[in-house]
Amino acid sequence: MRDVAIVGIGQTPVREHWDRGLRDLAVEAVLAAMDDAHVRRADALYVGNMLSGTLSFQEHVGALIAEYAGLEGIEAVKVEAACGSAAAALRQAVLAVQSGQVEVAIAVGVEKLTELASKCTTNALAMAADADYEAVMGLSFVAINALLMRRYMYEYGVSKEDFAAFTVNAHANARHNPFAMFHTPVTREQYAAAKMIADPINLLDSSPVSDGAAAVVIVPAERAREFSDKPVRVAACEVGTDTVALDNRANPLWLKGVERSARRAYRRAGVEPQDIGVFEVHDAFSIMAALSLEASGLAEPGTAVRLANEGAITPTGQFPIATMGGLKGRGHPVGATGLYQVVECVLHLRDEVPDAVRVEGVQYAMAQNIGGSGATVITTLLERLIT
Amino acid sequence: MRDVAIVGIGQTPVREHWDRGLRDLAVEAVLAAMDDAHVRRADALYVGNMLSGTLSFQEHVGALIAEYAGLEGIEAVKVEAACGSAAAALRQAVLAVQSGQVEVAIAVGVEKLTELASKCTTNALAMAADADYEAVMGLSFVAINALLMRRYMYEYGVSKEDFAAFTVNAHANARHNPFAMFHTPVTREQYAAAKMIADPINLLDSSPVSDGAAAVVIVPAERAREFSDKPVRVAACEVGTDTVALDNRANPLWLKGVERSARRAYRRAGVEPQDIGVFEVHDAFSIMAALSLEASGLAEPGTAVRLANEGAITPTGQFPIATMGGLKGRGHPVGATGLYQVVECVLHLRDEVPDAVRVEGVQYAMAQNIGGSGATVITTLLERLIT
Repeated sequence: MRDVAIVGIGQTPVREHWDRGLRDLAVEAVLAAMDDAHVRRADALYVGNMLSGTLSFQEHVGALIAEYAGLEGIEAVKVEAACGSAAAALRQAVLAVQSGQVEVAIAVGVEKLTELASKCTTNALAMAADADYEAVMGLSFVAINALLMRRYMYEYGVSKEDFAAFTVNAHANARHNPFAMFHTPVTREQYAAAKMIADPINLLDSSPVSDGAAAVVIVPAERAREFSDKPVRVAACEVGTDTVALDNRANPLWLKGVERSARRAYRRAGVEPQDIGVFEVHDAFSIMAALSLEASGLAEPGTAVRLANEGAITPTGQFPIATMGGLKGRGHPVGATGLYQVVECVLHLRDEVPDAVRVEGVQYAMAQNIGGSGATVITTLLERLIT
Repeated sequence: MRDVAIVGIGQTPVREHWDRGLRDLAVEAVLAAMDDAHVRRADALYVGNMLSGTLSFQEHVGALIAEYAGLEGIEAVKVEAACGSAAAALRQAVLAVQSGQVEVAIAVGVEKLTELASKCTTNALAMAADADYEAVMGLSFVAINALLMRRYMYEYGVSKEDFAAFTVNAHANARHNPFAMFHTPVTREQYAAAKMIADPINLLDSSPVSDGAAAVVIVPAERAREFSDKPVRVAACEVGTDTVALDNRANPLWLKGVERSARRAYRRAGVEPQDIGVFEVHDAFSIMAALSLEASGLAEPGTAVRLANEGAITPTGQFPIATMGGLKGRGHPVGATGLYQVVECVLHLRDEVPDAVRVEGVQYAMAQNIGGSGATVITTLLERLIT
């Protein structure tokens, strides 16, 4: 099995891009990643995307984005795993290069959510849940997360206000990321006063509806220096799944998909949770950050919120998360998010993050992208290569 | 790069399955393929599907189908390339096993088209074309194919009636396939009298709106005998793309995506077009069968319709196509079709097809699955293994 490396990264700012379409965003990220890797062609393109059909009336975006990125003719396909689509596309790019059939692969995640009225977006996002057993009951995606958060508060004796630590950290870090959607800090007081969305989830627990695209170029590690002075090794990129509907889970507070994916990644890379210097967590809602930390083995069950309040999650803490803003602060263009996380991890390992969010001595950075309420999880472990 | 083999196949009948949902169909095909390969588990599931979101309001079908097939926890993802989705999923399964990371992979294609009113289905299928430059102009998918057919007739001096040969052959063969949608033969007279859909395409040029699922189990070839007495080698499974919109092509009658995909497959497998014993062609419309034969190198440009009328495409002809009915006769559940084609090729190589459509001495069988009007093409070459 040959080793693979990331030699190019690209991203668009995360915004409400009302003036641009899905293909424009994807092409911008792809071309930026290709420029960064000094390549003019590639063998394969994997497009992570969830909602092109429902919101932009466009399927078949693999071939379409290849064409508009000047790559007409190459292998191209769309990969979908709800909000985990981008890292799922990365996984396919990694497998393609590892197989020996593909030399230069590009993975791009793209989502264009601000295409229709926001009600359409809410309905569309519910397709990450079980249509026949959850969505049909009127459970929106926020409501599903609200059930989880309420249950967490009940089981572990945690107050609503304690969750503020995640939002405060995410927004504090996002200020230093020019690609982030939000550059305004949030205080605990603002969090406590925020408008309720689906009790107990308020506006400041929720990642924003946003558009964007992020991309990476993958090559065999042995050839990485041809493309980049600072290649980053993909030590692992592993998928785990769980039931789609929450009610099929014995313990809804334990994300088995996260546990499976993270354990597979640790085993593949030969690392332990404490080896991870930076963890780009899937904090679509504050509760997901807490549950992910626990199922990934970084915090004992029921302790993540307390640890967050003790400062463990800040750039100088024990396990820094959302260092570039996370889904809450950078934004969450669903089918693109997993590759934003990976791009941010690469920036850490290339020592290219702003000083304010720099983490000392990072050897491994971990990105974890989650589809639905934990039904598809892709954990990517990236490793600094010694120059 | 390790060799891979197909050791299990499964398919549902192609029908209007008004009483069954997408997950039911997919699970039936997956379980049938697993039974055929005598396996109770797998490492990864690739779900080919185009329209689950738009027609069933369900994305995230990778994890969902894994769960309902009793495979909760395994790697699972959806792969989309319009009508080429199923073979695109197969391609990913092949790469995954070739990479060495996955031992047992399942590829399933599934489509549930009869979920909403037929107008919704027509609109949904147009998402295989360019939403911003074709569909928005009112060009339905049938209309795009009608433009191609009209142009072919004009350029090559072929009459509308000459295209009957494709439909007559497809329906004659479908009669012997219990999984096919149609079991009624069609005569040239019936073809000539068929209702016009989008001039010059009539009802009997068009594959039917249908539901179904088909699946295969893939393992390393060196382990194939553990699972099956009649494994079939995947000699090649190669993707080629072209522009999505027709107007971006210099010569719309030459399917560059087909040429690229087929040439890559021939090179990978080390074969020539004349080595192919059976060709399961993507005859979504009669014109696509003709154009595919030409761009695949089996017929010179402008000669496919004449050759079809001379009997070349029947089971006893020079290059038998649509031997189990093709898209026209077996049916075309879009995101499942590519795996129906592959299953049928496997049946040939296992000598399990009905006598009436048996082709003598098949060493290589080829399946070609096309997304859109030739924008994504996956050509799979399967090889008989000497026992």
